[in-house]
Amino acid sequence: MALIVQKYGGSSVADAESIKRVAKRIVETRKAGNEVVVAVSAMGDTTDELLDLAHQVTPIPHPRELDMLLTAGERISMALLAMSIRSMGHDARSFTGSQAGMITDARHGQARIVDVTPGRVRSALDEGAIAIVAGFQGFNRGTGDITTLGRGGSDTTAVALAAALGADVCEIYTDVDGIFTADPRVVPRAHKIDRISSEEMLELAANGAKVLYIRAVEYARRHGVTLHVRSSFNNNEGTIVFNELAPDAAGQAGSGASGGPGIPNLGTTPQTAELPSENSEKSVEEPLIAGVAADLSEAKITVVGVPDIPGKAAQIFNIVAKTGANIDMIVQNVSAAATGLTDISFTLPKSDGQQVLQTLTSSQPEVGFSSLQYDDQIGKLALVGAGMRTNAGVSAKLFTALYEAGINIEMISTSEIRISVVTRADTVNDALRVVHTAFGLDSDTEAVVHGGTGR
Amino acid sequence: MALIVQKYGGSSVADAESIKRVAKRIVETRKAGNEVVVAVSAMGDTTDELLDLAHQVTPIPHPRELDMLLTAGERISMALLAMSIRSMGHDARSFTGSQAGMITDARHGQARIVDVTPGRVRSALDEGAIAIVAGFQGFNRGTGDITTLGRGGSDTTAVALAAALGADVCEIYTDVDGIFTADPRVVPRAHKIDRISSEEMLELAANGAKVLYIRAVEYARRHGVTLHVRSSFNNNEGTIVFNELAPDAAGQAGSGASGGPGIPNLGTTPQTAELPSENSEKSVEEPLIAGVAADLSEAKITVVGVPDIPGKAAQIFNIVAKTGANIDMIVQNVSAAATGLTDISFTLPKSDGQQVLQTLTSSQPEVGFSSLQYDDQIGKLALVGAGMRTNAGVSAKLFTALYEAGINIEMISTSEIRISVVTRADTVNDALRVVHTAFGLDSDTEAVVHGGTGR
Repeated sequence: MALIVQKYGGSSVADAESIKRVAKRIVETRKAGNEVVVAVSAMGDTTDELLDLAHQVTPIPHPRELDMLLTAGERISMALLAMSIRSMGHDARSFTGSQAGMITDARHGQARIVDVTPGRVRSALDEGAIAIVAGFQGFNRGTGDITTLGRGGSDTTAVALAAALGADVCEIYTDVDGIFTADPRVVPRAHKIDRISSEEMLELAANGAKVLYIRAVEYARRHGVTLHVRSSFNNNEGTIVFNELAPDAAGQAGSGASGGPGIPNLGTTPQTAELPSENSEKSVEEPLIAGVAADLSEAKITVVGVPDIPGKAAQIFNIVAKTGANIDMIVQNVSAAATGLTDISFTLPKSDGQQVLQTLTSSQPEVGFSSLQYDDQIGKLALVGAGMRTNAGVSAKLFTALYEAGINIEMISTSEIRISVVTRADTVNDALRVVHTAFGLDSDTEAVVHGGTGR
Repeated sequence: MALIVQKYGGSSVADAESIKRVAKRIVETRKAGNEVVVAVSAMGDTTDELLDLAHQVTPIPHPRELDMLLTAGERISMALLAMSIRSMGHDARSFTGSQAGMITDARHGQARIVDVTPGRVRSALDEGAIAIVAGFQGFNRGTGDITTLGRGGSDTTAVALAAALGADVCEIYTDVDGIFTADPRVVPRAHKIDRISSEEMLELAANGAKVLYIRAVEYARRHGVTLHVRSSFNNNEGTIVFNELAPDAAGQAGSGASGGPGIPNLGTTPQTAELPSENSEKSVEEPLIAGVAADLSEAKITVVGVPDIPGKAAQIFNIVAKTGANIDMIVQNVSAAATGLTDISFTLPKSDGQQVLQTLTSSQPEVGFSSLQYDDQIGKLALVGAGMRTNAGVSAKLFTALYEAGINIEMISTSEIRISVVTRADTVNDALRVVHTAFGLDSDTEAVVHGGTGR
């Protein structure tokens, strides 16, 4: 008997009909002999409606009370889902984050999980019941207060439960078929990735792929949880996010059994051996690129005329760190010998831009730079793949493809399995398509695209 | 410093504007130097909407999950109310039934309170905060599950908190000005009662007055809690429901201090001495009638031709008791000597009628009666007043008034402070007006009537 954790997002439980459809899917998984734990988000637009109500009452809702308010959303969806399953003749019990043992710190609105004690969930499973757990929410022991986990919180709930319960797989149900080599809305010939390492997935998520939240991927990677990202609207195989460090996943990855897209795995235990393996022909011939992501949410700040003396970069980024902003790419130009001055550029979320600019401006006398430049018309393109580790030709191929398309590169940053470049915002989608083609990722058919998903 | 518990029903917090209005009222009570605890119902139609969702998912929602679902309603209203108070610069904290220590048995949908441990509420007050508690909901220690208290549950929450915290008064805010001598929609000249004993209030509530739930009144009476029923739409004094057994209330009732209707008591500690006392002239001159109530929700069953031998009535009502129906009035006719048979009639809620009829029908061979008659076209009129205890003329006056109006009396039942009569359903409202006038209850002005209220 396998233990499967499933996560359903808000678009999968948007109304009573959707809830019944999801309930049926859960029951089928149970009837196939699996133990099933479900993490569920609030229905469709519920969270937005609750936020709207809060803002009608006060422009700045108190964080503790906002968490109390928003957690009503999952309470509604989980109770409806449990009663729907009950009406199909299967035992099901809903649990709040607190009842499910999701212990967090006290940071309302963005709480971090500090412990998971799913005793009641385990008991429910032992008694043959399906456990339905509220996603997105937790509980702080010190204050006794309800907390929420922030964006992507329900994914994190599911992964944390899977880790704590030792689940065989954590299925993330969404409204797309899985992880794609690029955003199908921009690159129609993008194709679904059958398998991707958690390391590659992390890079893709961090660089703009929006199906999985980086935090949930990190949690899964750290705790050896295998993810299966798939659509709740069909029975197709989705994308397996495997953990290279997990002996099970690594051991079975090379066994080469196939069960390609389109074969429903409901009713079977989704052991990794039955899941599509990576294309082994490709992996010896050329660098294996997992996918390409584009991100338009960042801005670039350039600190102009910084004295080129040791410690200046550290000083600047210490000042920036105090604002809490997430710095992404950093580039320091070679110093012009004549002046002894250099320029330092970095990218950061646009939402952090104004505060960092203000903080840096007030530090100008102390740091001694000439001026600041702010540019929010940039786009970031990231090429991700574990295969590029051992192949030096990847960056050359990338730069050539962009050059031939007339796209100018403004910044470059690389990691072991990723190359990121910054271009003008209005060229990044062209860049995405050009690079997707250049690395042979184009599919023969166009992808079907549904709407977007929430928390 | 007085401790005031306030309860706001769904119609008082129907939207963001109403919530802000209620928040302002709460803040004013706090600013006047009182400690304030608030029990709040779900917003307007929220409960009905959640019930509707549940029924879209399954015709018979599982009771545990239905409670989980419905409790989302108060979670929303209490969080919004707390953040609204916070935005006015006062500390406020919302607490679920579980957090506020409302311990109940495990009967989902109609749980009874078994203990109240409001430690967190008390701590919040000690720290200067206003405590906002979810009405209607509780928590069972054995199962760890969320429960709901059933109809009128928020009133009960407020009274139970007032009792556990030793509050000076429990203010029940509603959409009418208080308790009236009769339903103002039927008797336009009904007037608001300034003070009524809990004993009288119990009889009125049990006989069709809908502003207060009998259960909350019982709880208040048993625990010596003084209630103040008043409108959340104005600052008028409402109706004080005092407890004759409570030494404070009894001692101050005769002190005769006046503060009639229309004098706002916001900003003052509503000590009972400042509240309107009963009209002492009236109480020595004639039997003090508190009010008249009419009830159209009952039906009458007559068991015809019961052998007039000892134990038959006990046998019949033991059979009826097994159905769980609430029997109200019982009348047994004098036996006709010639036949040795008698008729037994009783009233009960119409909703219980069919099941009791079926049960009795199947017991016919055993009991040995001739036939059953079912009549759901009856109306019940109840005249309530502690003064009738010592005045034998009340029933004569009642029967005369009805006779002169041509209204036939079908059943009569009396308690120490109540006389109930059953009439045809279509005459009960006429009866209400006639009796109201006959006992000198008519006011000089017509009452203003708002809409109805929920749980």
